[in-house]
Formats: sequence, C-alpha cells, structure tokens
Amino acid sequence: MAEQKGARSQPEMSERELLVVFTPSGRRGRFLPGTTVLHAAQELGVDIDSVCGGRAICGRCQVVLSEGSFAKHGIESYPENLSSLGENEVEYRRLHSLEPSRRLSCSTRILGDVVIDVPPDSQVHKQVVRKRAEVHDIEVDPLVRLHFIEVPEPNMHDPSGDLERVCQELEFEWGLTGLTCDLHVHQTLQDNLRKGEWKVTVAVFRQREIIALWPGFRDQALGIAVDVGSTTIAAHLCDLSSGKVLASSGMMNPQIRFGEDLMSRVSYVMMHPGGEKELTEAVRSAIRQLSQEVCKASGHEPSDVLDMTFVGNPIMHHLLLGLSPLELGGAPFALVTDQALELKASELGLDMHPGTRAYLLPCIAAHVGADAAGMVLSEAPYLREEMTLLVDVGTNAEIVLGNRDRLLAASSPTGPAFEGAQISCGQRAAPGAIERVRINPETLEPRFKVIGCEAWSDDPE
Amino acid sequence: MAEQKGARSQPEMSERELLVVFTPSGRRGRFLPGTTVLHAAQELGVDIDSVCGGRAICGRCQVVLSEGSFAKHGIESYPENLSSLGENEVEYRRLHSLEPSRRLSCSTRILGDVVIDVPPDSQVHKQVVRKRAEVHDIEVDPLVRLHFIEVPEPNMHDPSGDLERVCQELEFEWGLTGLTCDLHVHQTLQDNLRKGEWKVTVAVFRQREIIALWPGFRDQALGIAVDVGSTTIAAHLCDLSSGKVLASSGMMNPQIRFGEDLMSRVSYVMMHPGGEKELTEAVRSAIRQLSQEVCKASGHEPSDVLDMTFVGNPIMHHLLLGLSPLELGGAPFALVTDQALELKASELGLDMHPGTRAYLLPCIAAHVGADAAGMVLSEAPYLREEMTLLVDVGTNAEIVLGNRDRLLAASSPTGPAFEGAQISCGQRAAPGAIERVRINPETLEPRFKVIGCEAWSDDPE
Repeated sequence: MAEQKGARSQPEMSERELLVVFTPSGRRGRFLPGTTVLHAAQELGVDIDSVCGGRAICGRCQVVLSEGSFAKHGIESYPENLSSLGENEVEYRRLHSLEPSRRLSCSTRILGDVVIDVPPDSQVHKQVVRKRAEVHDIEVDPLVRLHFIEVPEPNMHDPSGDLERVCQELEFEWGLTGLTCDLHVHQTLQDNLRKGEWKVTVAVFRQREIIALWPGFRDQALGIAVDVGSTTIAAHLCDLSSGKVLASSGMMNPQIRFGEDLMSRVSYVMMHPGGEKELTEAVRSAIRQLSQEVCKASGHEPSDVLDMTFVGNPIMHHLLLGLSPLELGGAPFALVTDQALELKASELGLDMHPGTRAYLLPCIAAHVGADAAGMVLSEAPYLREEMTLLVDVGTNAEIVLGNRDRLLAASSPTGPAFEGAQISCGQRAAPGAIERVRINPETLEPRFKVIGCEAWSDDPE
Repeated sequence: MAEQKGARSQPEMSERELLVVFTPSGRRGRFLPGTTVLHAAQELGVDIDSVCGGRAICGRCQVVLSEGSFAKHGIESYPENLSSLGENEVEYRRLHSLEPSRRLSCSTRILGDVVIDVPPDSQVHKQVVRKRAEVHDIEVDPLVRLHFIEVPEPNMHDPSGDLERVCQELEFEWGLTGLTCDLHVHQTLQDNLRKGEWKVTVAVFRQREIIALWPGFRDQALGIAVDVGSTTIAAHLCDLSSGKVLASSGMMNPQIRFGEDLMSRVSYVMMHPGGEKELTEAVRSAIRQLSQEVCKASGHEPSDVLDMTFVGNPIMHHLLLGLSPLELGGAPFALVTDQALELKASELGLDMHPGTRAYLLPCIAAHVGADAAGMVLSEAPYLREEMTLLVDVGTNAEIVLGNRDRLLAASSPTGPAFEGAQISCGQRAAPGAIERVRINPETLEPRFKVIGCEAWSDDPE
C-alpha cells in the first residue's frame, strides 16, 4: 500500500531527503523534496484525518507549520520550507473558512526540513474532552467511515465489474482489503458511479463492509444513540466523526399501556400469548418516531443515519429485539444472550438507510442490562484505583461498585417496578404525586407540594 | 479443545497405551485402553463424520475392524481387541440397518492394538464418484453442517445467556469458536431449548454462523442448486451431507413474456423504466415454485432447505439479484460485480428457512457468466494436461478452451439471442419448428419433420 501510494504521489527527484518531524506524536522521517505533508504523515503512521484522500475537498487534514529553530531536532523550520498555496488550496480557502496559519496537508509539499504540528481536530482518533472534570476523555473512533474515491471507467480490455474497480481504489487509496458489500449497494452502484462521473463517496463499516455509496463528495455520517428505558426513551443524533450531539429528543415508552413496570409487562405477555409482538412493535415505533424527530430538528434525513446504538435493561433489550421476556420473569432469569449484538437496523424494523447498522450493548446479567453496561463504559470505574459506586436510578436502579481490580453489579426495583402491582397508594412521579414535604419545626404542621402545581398545600388559593 | 475432550471422555487408567492404525489414511497413535475409536480418530485428525457427537444416534461414524496379523504395523488385530456391543449400539442396531461387520466408532472402545478401516461413506469429505469415467470426482464439503449438543441448564450462580451456553457446548464438543447467530435463532432459542429438554441440533454455516436450531436430534440438511437459464430454469434438491440429488424439476423462464432472448429483455427494460423489477419478480417467483416442487416431490418442507446455489448468464445473474441489466446491453458491457456473492436467501425474496443462505457463482466477464463458471468447476479443465474445449449450448453458447496452464473463455448467441429481433423466419425449437430435413438422392425430392408431429411431411395423412 505504502509503495503504491509512493509510486503515485512521490515525484521522481534525486536530491537529498528532507527531515520532517510531526508534533505532538514526535514521529520523524526523511522524504524526497516535493512529498506532500499528508503522504509523509501516512508513511510515518501519524494519526491524521482525511475523507477525500488528498483532493483538497474535505479540509480534514489541516496542519500548522511550527516556525523557528529546533535545536533538539536539528531543524530550521520556516515557511519557505513548504510549497506556497496551490490552486486547490486557494479554491478551498475561497469556499471555506480556514485560519491563515493552517495548511491543507494534502496540498502542501515539503521543500526543506520542517516541524509540523497536527492539531487535535485533524486527528482521526480525536478525543472529546468532556466538560465535567471528574470524567475521563472519550476517544471518537466511529465504526462507519467515509471514503471519497475516483474510480477507473470500465473498458473492453479489462472485463472486471464496477464493484471490483471500486474495491481496487479503496485498497489503493485507503488500504482497505477483503471488503464485502451490501446487496442494496450493488443495486444502485452502476447508476451512482455514472451520476457522480466516477467520483463517489463510500461508507465502510468496521473497515470490512461497504454499506452505502453516493455520487460525488460527502462529508458527514450520522449515528443515533438510543436509551430504551422502561418509562422513557431518549435518542441523540450524533456526528460520527466529531462525536458532537446534533439533536436530542425523548418520549414516554408507549409500552406503558401494557403495564407500568417491567414485571407487569412480563405478566401481560404471560396472559396474552403473542403479546410480546405488540410490546416489540410499540417500542420500535417509538424509536422510529424519535429518530425522525432528531433528524428533522437538525435538518437531516433518516437516510443520513448509518449507525445506531442501543442500551436498555434486559427486558427492554429483549423486547426491542423481538425476544420473549418470559424467561426473565422468573428464576433463574435466563437471558437469551448476554453478548453485544451487531445487526442491520432494518432487522429491527427501523427504516433509516438500508445499510444502517445497529449495535446493542451487552447485558451483564438477568436484571443488570445494557444500560448498566453503558453506564460503566461511560464512567469507566475500571480505569481507576479508587473505589467508585455508580447508581443509575430509573424504574429499576442498577448499582455498580468497584475499581480496576474488580467490579460488582446488582439491581433493584426503585419505583413501582415490583410493588406497583401490590400497593394501593402510590404512583409514578407525574402530575399529582407529592414532590416535597416540609414540617414546621415549631408548630409541627406539615405542608407539601405536588407535581403540576406551583403552590404549596398551605398557600392561600 | 483436544485436551478438554480428553478430560471428558478418556478414562483414567495407568495401563500401557495401545497402538491404533487407521486405514486408508495410515494415521497411527497410542491411546489408553478404553478410549473410544471416534475419540482416537479425532485426536489423530482422521476424517470421520459425526452429527450427534458420540451419542450413537446418527450412525455416521461407522468403522470396520481389519482382522488379522499386520506385520508392517506390528499389530495383531482381532475382535477381542475392541469392546463388545454396548447398550447404545444394540439400540441403534435395533432401530437401523447396520452391517454386522460395522461398528459405531463412538460406542466402541479400544482394548488392544487394532487396525481400523474408515469406509468412504463415514468420511466428512467423502468423494462422490460420478458415473461418467472421464469426469473427476467431486468432494462433498458442505457449507452447512449439523451439530447435536446437550446444553447445560441455566442457574442462579452463572448469569450467562442461553446462547452463550449453546456456544460453549459447540466449542467444547465441536471446536467451533467465535460464532455469530442469526436474529431469528435468538427469537426461538429459549423455546427450542426447553422443548428439546436442553438437547438441540444446531446448523452452522461456514463454521462461523448459527443459522438454525431445532429441539432434539436432526440428521439431514438440504440444499437446492438452481441453473437460471434464459429459456429454462432447473432446480435440484440435494442432501448436503451425501451430495445425493433427491429431486429435480424444471420450467420455462417466465421472463420469456418480456422478450424471447436476452437482448430483447434488456430492450424491454430500456423502453420500460423500472421494468427490471418485473423481470426480477418473474425469475424469483419461478424459483420459489420450483423449490416447492422439488421439496414436495421428495417429501420435505421448503423450511428444511438451508443452502441454495445459483448459476446463470450475467443478465440472468443480475436480474435474479435485482440489478439493472442495462449496462450489459452495450459496450463496454460492465458487470456490477464479477465476484461470487454470499447472501441470505430471504434477500432474494426466497422464503425457505429464515436462515437459508444463497450463493451465486462468480461471473467470468460481461457475457460469460456464472453458468460458465459452474461448467468449468464441474469439468475441471484446469486440472488437466491435455487441451479441452467445453461448450455450453443454450440460448447463448459459452466456450472455454484450455488446460492447467491457461483458460480462455468466450460467448456467442446461438439461437435467437441476437437475430431474433431481426429475422422474419425462424423460431425457438418448439412445436412447429422444422426438426429434420431429408433429400431423396435420386429424385432430389425434399421432405421434413416438425416438432410436435410424428409424421414426415410426405407421409400419407
């Protein structure tokens, strides 16, 4: 791969090789004059982003020249050691905002020894630093990546298929080998190649499956993260390359009409054979609705969404998948599976893009579900020395205690999960429920406030 | 794996190890007295079949003791060197026909040095010797294999999922690791485990995907091979483990109503945008019908079919897949793909078992299709020294010339493929077409015979 790339982009010169040092990685190497900065970075394995593969279209590969005399590297690094702005880069600057100090590494050639800084936002594995100080950074490493390629046209002397030429180019430019391809991509491939005049953007899942292909250049792939709770369902639309949340929405879980708590939904299935189908359809239709809402709110189409991730307690997890929750209703509470699942979203009746993938986090045990796994992943107590107690209070509460040596998990009904079917006084935290109680320390007179009403019980009407 | 097996089935004895030689493989090794013949074979990598994993149910693992004194092995091999018939084996003999000389290797223990012959029908990779002398043998090596297992029941102390216990057992008994599982299997898994009282048969595709699971023991997996021709479609139902053809059926390709030859079907799509959908539905419905016919003829259900294989010329190949044939209608005749395809049959609208896989052979070039690839695979000119010319005469003829050094392929319309749209006199070989012409050498009087009529043209009426 590296050799092929070299053969294409490295000019034939016989001058002395120039020293290039990348920061912050510290990787260094010697290259022939005229080598592009992006090519040098790729040869050295420096983490630098690119969707368009060096065509000055995507603007992902920005770098900054570190100016000055670097005694420790033995480098005098000055602007004249890089090529001046070329036509492509001038055009990119005309169309997009680009800080004057920044260069597109794909269009900048090395003319002398240089120190090049790769800013965090130009890295593929950029870290999202979260606001709250106590939480660890999260590395953005999406399963779906976009790749812009130019495909050779077919000719009578080379009887290969259009897809094989797409795959060749993905191997040549991006080092991707052994790719499979979704049938729906086959079905529109020839049309899209010709509409894009043989320039197309390809979405590749896990570096192994072609899941979408569009004519021309495309820069954004979206994902939706869904938390399927017993009482509420929440969805977040994310930009897969930046990790940024573009829109969020939530709604009551419509399964509530089959039972307010988990156990009464299991009872519903016991009493109504086949009732799990209704529960499954209810949760899936809620997810469809939320997906449409978050797309609309951010000006996107559901077909822009290529990846979806789900968490939920084991009963929600099973019902979303169309699995009967009956075994979870009684000891020994056997899960169908405790492993993470990778599916097509269409298998869950979610009609986003036909290539959209769905990922369900693993369940930990019978009543400690994928939501608890998500909490552990997010808070990462397994990275810490100190003992941490995590509690996710919902209709059930999941509790995780531990540190890097060992984690223990348990769960317990908190709200009406078990007692809902038994108690005569009590309700969800909805309008009418008592929210606060105050007792006057002198008169011992109590007063309270209920949800849905601004006034305290003893306020004058 | 081998160690785990040993730990389970090998008795703890401290006597001297016994010498066992398997024929025809010649593999030999020493084992403790009491080791089963099947276990010894598996340890030595002898190719011996088994579905039930040593439970004397499937009868696949039959062997024959080679009796006598084998000087070259240094073995005196006599019946008393094997255990006598056990309860399981007596029961199997009561229910099934079994030649007196044959033993079930899973139920037969080694008590002295022995030479054991594995007959061809007990091998997994058994060869099907075809009748015609000039053709090479074909090795039966199905992609779908059945495995009977007993799964541990869940309990409160081990919070694993039912599927994980299935996978553990498949690893323990069959060495299968890293398996994925179809969603429809998840959906019926808990029911099937309990119906089978924790004994189930699992169908595994390519040793990596669980595609079906039934309660209890099951011994037969079926496949259908389909030749999609422009004019006729043929289907053959096969037993995947023996390679035996159980039933065959054929019918006219209903696409004929859209054009008699390939190019007129391409023209139909040109003139009727979206017409490729009708053509695709026509060929798929014909395949559904044929599949039902061959299943019915042999007393099986379509849901017993777990694998399907297709060949066809590139236009039939594309239409079966729902790909537009337009690019194949003019130079440079670009295929969507020339590679083999692996799909779920349901993606082709074929509703056999939900786990049924579909395999399409690769196309060789624009008008040399998967049918020609099938012909090459079957006749194997690439194995021979001598030059071979293969011709598949259909509506098009594909021609392959070559030997082990090089193969060349070409195709040409033979019947009405191209000229059908142009000629005014001529038709398919159907009733009314002239079949024979004779000229009387003395009178020079011609006479002819047409299809559908027994009499010659000059016979008295």
